[in-house]
Amino acid sequence: MSSYAKTSIKKSDKVAHFQQDVWSIFTPLAAQLNAINLGQGFMNFPPEEFIKEAARNAISIDECHQYSHPKGRLHTRQALAKTYGPLFNRTLDPESEIITTAGANEGLYSIFAGFINEGNEVILIEPFFDQYISNITMNGGVPVYVPLKPYGDASKIMSSRDWKLDINELRSKVTPKTKLIVFNTPHNPVGKVFSKEEMEEIAQVAREFNLLLVSDEVYDRLYYKPDVHERIANLPGMWERTITVGSGGKTFGTTGWRVGWLIGHKELIATALAAHTRVVFCVNSPLQEALAVSLECAETNDYYENNIAKYEAKREKLCTALSDAGLPYTIPQGSYFILANSAKIQVPEDYEFPEIIKKRPRDFKVCYWMAKEIGVVAIPPSEFYCEENRYLAKDYVRFAFCKTDETLDAAAKALLKLRNYIKQ
Amino acid sequence: MSSYAKTSIKKSDKVAHFQQDVWSIFTPLAAQLNAINLGQGFMNFPPEEFIKEAARNAISIDECHQYSHPKGRLHTRQALAKTYGPLFNRTLDPESEIITTAGANEGLYSIFAGFINEGNEVILIEPFFDQYISNITMNGGVPVYVPLKPYGDASKIMSSRDWKLDINELRSKVTPKTKLIVFNTPHNPVGKVFSKEEMEEIAQVAREFNLLLVSDEVYDRLYYKPDVHERIANLPGMWERTITVGSGGKTFGTTGWRVGWLIGHKELIATALAAHTRVVFCVNSPLQEALAVSLECAETNDYYENNIAKYEAKREKLCTALSDAGLPYTIPQGSYFILANSAKIQVPEDYEFPEIIKKRPRDFKVCYWMAKEIGVVAIPPSEFYCEENRYLAKDYVRFAFCKTDETLDAAAKALLKLRNYIKQ
Repeated sequence: MSSYAKTSIKKSDKVAHFQQDVWSIFTPLAAQLNAINLGQGFMNFPPEEFIKEAARNAISIDECHQYSHPKGRLHTRQALAKTYGPLFNRTLDPESEIITTAGANEGLYSIFAGFINEGNEVILIEPFFDQYISNITMNGGVPVYVPLKPYGDASKIMSSRDWKLDINELRSKVTPKTKLIVFNTPHNPVGKVFSKEEMEEIAQVAREFNLLLVSDEVYDRLYYKPDVHERIANLPGMWERTITVGSGGKTFGTTGWRVGWLIGHKELIATALAAHTRVVFCVNSPLQEALAVSLECAETNDYYENNIAKYEAKREKLCTALSDAGLPYTIPQGSYFILANSAKIQVPEDYEFPEIIKKRPRDFKVCYWMAKEIGVVAIPPSEFYCEENRYLAKDYVRFAFCKTDETLDAAAKALLKLRNYIKQ
Repeated sequence: MSSYAKTSIKKSDKVAHFQQDVWSIFTPLAAQLNAINLGQGFMNFPPEEFIKEAARNAISIDECHQYSHPKGRLHTRQALAKTYGPLFNRTLDPESEIITTAGANEGLYSIFAGFINEGNEVILIEPFFDQYISNITMNGGVPVYVPLKPYGDASKIMSSRDWKLDINELRSKVTPKTKLIVFNTPHNPVGKVFSKEEMEEIAQVAREFNLLLVSDEVYDRLYYKPDVHERIANLPGMWERTITVGSGGKTFGTTGWRVGWLIGHKELIATALAAHTRVVFCVNSPLQEALAVSLECAETNDYYENNIAKYEAKREKLCTALSDAGLPYTIPQGSYFILANSAKIQVPEDYEFPEIIKKRPRDFKVCYWMAKEIGVVAIPPSEFYCEENRYLAKDYVRFAFCKTDETLDAAAKALLKLRNYIKQ
């Protein structure tokens, strides 16, 4: 018996049931195998020079080495107000309607801490960003699930437009315990950009049952023609019940900065701030300053348009690669992810999987096998479904295309090997 | 009725009772009054050039703009292992015994989230860092309090050595529901550096009742001769039950970096990591890298010794200023805070206080009055006591001396005005 075992200091129930998260399985696996990593959604290329310069300059500002106000640096809140005011069709008050958070992740966590009581139900649309679940349950919430479903022939190329929410199913999940709905557009991992009409249906439920709506819009700068990102907070009667979550990392290709933001009605923001101030106190100052300057530069240097064009070309590259490999997929309207359908891939039946993979659904096995044998890492999306609905994802794998063209070209070449394992 | 009032989306019980925190009252007040700010413990001088250079160089490393592993950047964990291994008398494994956190604050939060179940009791030694309380209660814990008490004549100059814990009182607070003890040395705000003998008494209780010990050692690099910082994790049988919390901001004068760390037995760290990974996912990468390089430089450039000498001189300056002003105080053995006894100060009885101050204890009134009339901001330490014991702090105010010599000299001059309000 080890000396630790003798102490037997137990984990809390909040974390005791956590399985190893999908990221800390597949990101290290990619490194270990030296495989082409189209798994986790981080960029393997540097941010634009103006963004790096903003960060370098922030280091020279003495006060950037000290605490910010828990709300965020005033400069950053002002820059966010200036950029986002027109997008929300209102003048945003940097003192009360905007805070910065330690990544969008901590912003979401603080919303849940600020609003969820033990036993409150939270409606999630599947597939969802896996962190939602732990962020909700750690705060005593009970996730309730409604899946997006693909309508059409999944063995053919589809559009993320074909993945639809059954609004009656969502409505049927509302109970007196329901507190909030988590909504996400552009959607990870489907890539769906919800239309105003689809949003209005969800908004109607939120208004009818007096629910808070948390709108995860971290990919709000990544949508492809002819689609346009709409904001659910702008629908009638929604400003007062919507907190919109944004991300500096997604916007400027700097996932390591950990600067996100929340925008909404001042009473909602005050509540999230109360939690945020206690969870992390404040966000790192230098990269908040860098975000402020990057936002200001982006107002005049066509960054967003150029970035969309860059990502559109990358999307095209990966789509072509998947077509060439013989895999059907969903063309995303937004984000930098593509869901491919792996049903046709025949993984050798006697293939040896490590314990950590064995107990998981088919998509984990396909992704593990593909990493080892094809040399390309993708993410198994069953992690983005509740246990009951996990079967809906068993035939999918998620590829990220926020990677260099060289990486995408190498992936295209490697993926051709899949043809040997595809049944026609 | 406003449109928001109609929605009436309620806060969670976790945050509903929060009062405005002391920092967001007094830090903005200092700015508004253009008063000399000896309140919040941040530096109003730049970090050393080698530290800024480390931060600037990190911006040039492409991978520093992307996610770190949730455990932290490997380079940072390796640097921490190298620096702290000898201080813990062991080889530290960067893969399992160290993680970085989004400031020490989030490290503490994640420990509490990882270990506390609803109703678990947590023993706190008063006065305490105010964030402990919310971090504990948000995770369902129940704080239980034991005060440090000054032994001696509080109307005279004392040493933080004279503030003592009654170990029998602490022992009497242990119940079957007790899960952990939070310990802090060097101590904020008393400045006490606990002796090995004092720690051994606390360790004995932790071992006897099988409690987790959270050792907040964020001021571990700031102690003054003849005192030496000792680590409770190094006492017999304590490694397996202690998580030590550290802070890059306190160590390198960069409170805005938000990079802290946890060191401890791998099972304890794994549990804190499980929570940390969900709360923030990972810490900002550039300043983690800067921390790694700063730690490496500090191994050879006498930074810690020079820094102690610098702070010792600042301590001397503030002690002299308080003596000249006629205020008794506690000479701190460590940290950059001085508790002064304000009992002698006669605040005019008809002085007008804003609502936010009116309802608070005497020390809030003294601090508010002093900010307005004397032009020096300090922090009321009753915020660092439970309601029941708050009376113990009503006659104290906390000054921070992590400020430029110019600021301390200006404060000394302004504080002389106190003499007009001191009864002899």
